[in-house]
Amino acid sequence: MIKKLLIANRGEIAVRIIRACKELDIETVAVFSEADKDSLHVQMADEAYCIGPKASKDSYLNITNIMSIAKLTDCDAIHPGYGFLAENADFAELCKECNIEFVGPSADAISRMGTKDVARETMKHAGVPIVPGSQGIVETIEDAIKVAEEIQYPVIIKATAGGGGKGIRVAHNVEELKKGMAITQKEAQSAFGNPGVYLEKYIQDFRHVEIQVIADKHGNTVHLGERDCSIQRRLQKLVEETPSPAISESTREKMGNAAIKAAKAVDYTGAGTIEFIYDHREDRFYFMEMNTRIQVEHPVTEMVTGIDLVKEQIMVASGEPLSFKQEDVQFNGWAIECRINAENPEKQFMPSAGKIDMYLPPGGLGVRIDSAAYPGYTIPPYYDSMIAKLITYGNTREEAVLRMKRALSEFVIEGIHSTIPFHLKLMDHEVFRSGDFNTKFLENYDVMGSSNKGGANT
Amino acid sequence: MIKKLLIANRGEIAVRIIRACKELDIETVAVFSEADKDSLHVQMADEAYCIGPKASKDSYLNITNIMSIAKLTDCDAIHPGYGFLAENADFAELCKECNIEFVGPSADAISRMGTKDVARETMKHAGVPIVPGSQGIVETIEDAIKVAEEIQYPVIIKATAGGGGKGIRVAHNVEELKKGMAITQKEAQSAFGNPGVYLEKYIQDFRHVEIQVIADKHGNTVHLGERDCSIQRRLQKLVEETPSPAISESTREKMGNAAIKAAKAVDYTGAGTIEFIYDHREDRFYFMEMNTRIQVEHPVTEMVTGIDLVKEQIMVASGEPLSFKQEDVQFNGWAIECRINAENPEKQFMPSAGKIDMYLPPGGLGVRIDSAAYPGYTIPPYYDSMIAKLITYGNTREEAVLRMKRALSEFVIEGIHSTIPFHLKLMDHEVFRSGDFNTKFLENYDVMGSSNKGGANT
Repeated sequence: MIKKLLIANRGEIAVRIIRACKELDIETVAVFSEADKDSLHVQMADEAYCIGPKASKDSYLNITNIMSIAKLTDCDAIHPGYGFLAENADFAELCKECNIEFVGPSADAISRMGTKDVARETMKHAGVPIVPGSQGIVETIEDAIKVAEEIQYPVIIKATAGGGGKGIRVAHNVEELKKGMAITQKEAQSAFGNPGVYLEKYIQDFRHVEIQVIADKHGNTVHLGERDCSIQRRLQKLVEETPSPAISESTREKMGNAAIKAAKAVDYTGAGTIEFIYDHREDRFYFMEMNTRIQVEHPVTEMVTGIDLVKEQIMVASGEPLSFKQEDVQFNGWAIECRINAENPEKQFMPSAGKIDMYLPPGGLGVRIDSAAYPGYTIPPYYDSMIAKLITYGNTREEAVLRMKRALSEFVIEGIHSTIPFHLKLMDHEVFRSGDFNTKFLENYDVMGSSNKGGANT
Repeated sequence: MIKKLLIANRGEIAVRIIRACKELDIETVAVFSEADKDSLHVQMADEAYCIGPKASKDSYLNITNIMSIAKLTDCDAIHPGYGFLAENADFAELCKECNIEFVGPSADAISRMGTKDVARETMKHAGVPIVPGSQGIVETIEDAIKVAEEIQYPVIIKATAGGGGKGIRVAHNVEELKKGMAITQKEAQSAFGNPGVYLEKYIQDFRHVEIQVIADKHGNTVHLGERDCSIQRRLQKLVEETPSPAISESTREKMGNAAIKAAKAVDYTGAGTIEFIYDHREDRFYFMEMNTRIQVEHPVTEMVTGIDLVKEQIMVASGEPLSFKQEDVQFNGWAIECRINAENPEKQFMPSAGKIDMYLPPGGLGVRIDSAAYPGYTIPPYYDSMIAKLITYGNTREEAVLRMKRALSEFVIEGIHSTIPFHLKLMDHEVFRSGDFNTKFLENYDVMGSSNKGGANT
């Protein structure tokens, strides 16, 4: 069993990991940048060491310093949290070489899932549905037209070397395809030095539905149901819930089985998430990607299953078999998470770092807070803007939503702007309440109303 | 349905009731004494009115002022919380006369359960086990000896007009009984002007196990399992948990059925608790008393059943039928509550009212806080000493206890003393961990160790 664990992260997820360690009676070592010396994770850990200046690349991404601290403090494990080094295969490999348990999957699994084309091919061979598209690179317009006719318009033209929304173009017909191919190839050549493009069917207005999996080192892989993360702003999730209001019991089962296949295809161990594009009009789903780490939104799954995912991650890393089988997993009630960020929703979500003068989280039945904030804490501007994750639980979606409204209304954060006013309006939004929405929701509806149109005067 | 509700209480229970109202979309009116103008319940309610000076008798017990505010603000209901007017039959009756819904049982049920002898007789007729004893008053020594031989020593001699631990004497044999009868009768005559005494079997080292019931106005009465409240100091409960580590499934069922009989015997409506003396050596239980109101420790029941008791109270008062039947009630996992009081456990729990400089409640999975505290809040010395109820939930008792330790260790309360150090030691105490203890636990074990023996130097 792991005895001493280094947390290679900061903020609420570092606090989350320390909590799990305390409940498992594992000693904890925090690391922090110069900007984070007053952070809660530093205060809560048994030991804490500075690993560099404020810039992430010099501190939370500083592999040499982190490994040195782990070795000097005799840690036998490192938990990477999410972000930073969590999906860095080299770091996972280095941990192995240094005889330190990396709380996560193997370097091989990280790298097979982290490379887009490889992941797509692996899933295809494993029988996990992928978005219909070309087999590898499409060289000529003629081939592209042939593929597009097979998979039907609209199609999406993607540069194989692209990423982050660059080198992507949608075509609704053969004319657009001809033009799009030429432009995308040219752009890809100049931007990435590689003109290769491939085609995928363009799924419009999909829902983002993902499946939580956990696997031990003894061949047991279990899924813990889905999370619906369709409320997004510029690809950033803002609200997550489980179960999904959109999928049926049979789709849930199919998606769960597909997720287990996906994990098994890369000999996955630990906690991971298979993200799917869910086409609600066709009731079909397609593999999007796998996140080979704990996710921000993991608490909603914990609330409905009663399973402590971070404790399970650590147990699995220690070599323990899972304490439950698929048939033992019970889903009770409904859970919703709102990400409370230090941003001003009245001004296009402009960041609002600074000092929190007054801080009082909500309490009572069915309310959970995961946060590293405290009264007098100054949020540094260098990292992400999350102040707290507010999670509510209810027997029904209605109860969870009403409880979220109640909890949001009593959450006191003074001194900086937060997204609480946005979430309050969202919980009252007719379309959100109906459960019938997709990832375009925030493009289609102006949740903040006219206040969000304002500029300098608001 | 109730539209506007006055909360005739203060502190965490007032906050608890406001939370339930917000989730039910009911307007709230808070009342407060002059000492409580900065209280959280005043800030959270839609409206708030001062009802008198700091002394409870002039404010929270001031029926005239409370009723006036209720009428002036057009409230259609009053929730009394616990303590203060919660078990005042006259107040319940007055509400009825004023056409205001009292969130609780009828005045008749309150008064039949509030009078010791009447309750004992009512239970006997209803078939609820009562402690064996004499039928009414025992006049002579000879009769007393006869009864004692029937019910077997040790016996307890109780003044019928006694209460609060006065006019009570234990006898282990006929000699003690003879002396005890004479002294108790004499004492009772001088203290209460009534020499009448009766006999009950003296149950030593019992556990305090109570059953939560809830009944609607349509004849449905359901029990929601037990709470074990055996960790007490001078009859004050400090820690409560559910399920009880001591009772079997068949005892649980028998106790639940007895509690339903007890409630039905007085046509009970609303939430109530039947407290039992549980003799764990004999596996027998006896009616102790019924609390005809919501209890401090109700959250542990909510955690394992998922049922919001305060919302249900209000729904029942509104005339709604219960939304569940006995067979729908599911019990999942284990919940423990620690009462965090403003007292110094290193100095015989001396009260420690004053200003809370820093306040940061714990968070994360399985942690619930019910509190009216906030950073900068000054606890007035006039009322009870509770700062917060900390409730943890786990799949097993072990998990709930370890989570409680973790949560206690991160709970920040600065500026005043609290009972957190006591609870931390208790959670590590071998006998507490074993689950095998009774109401004498704190007399038998010095949880705080030598530090509690100290006087001026500690």
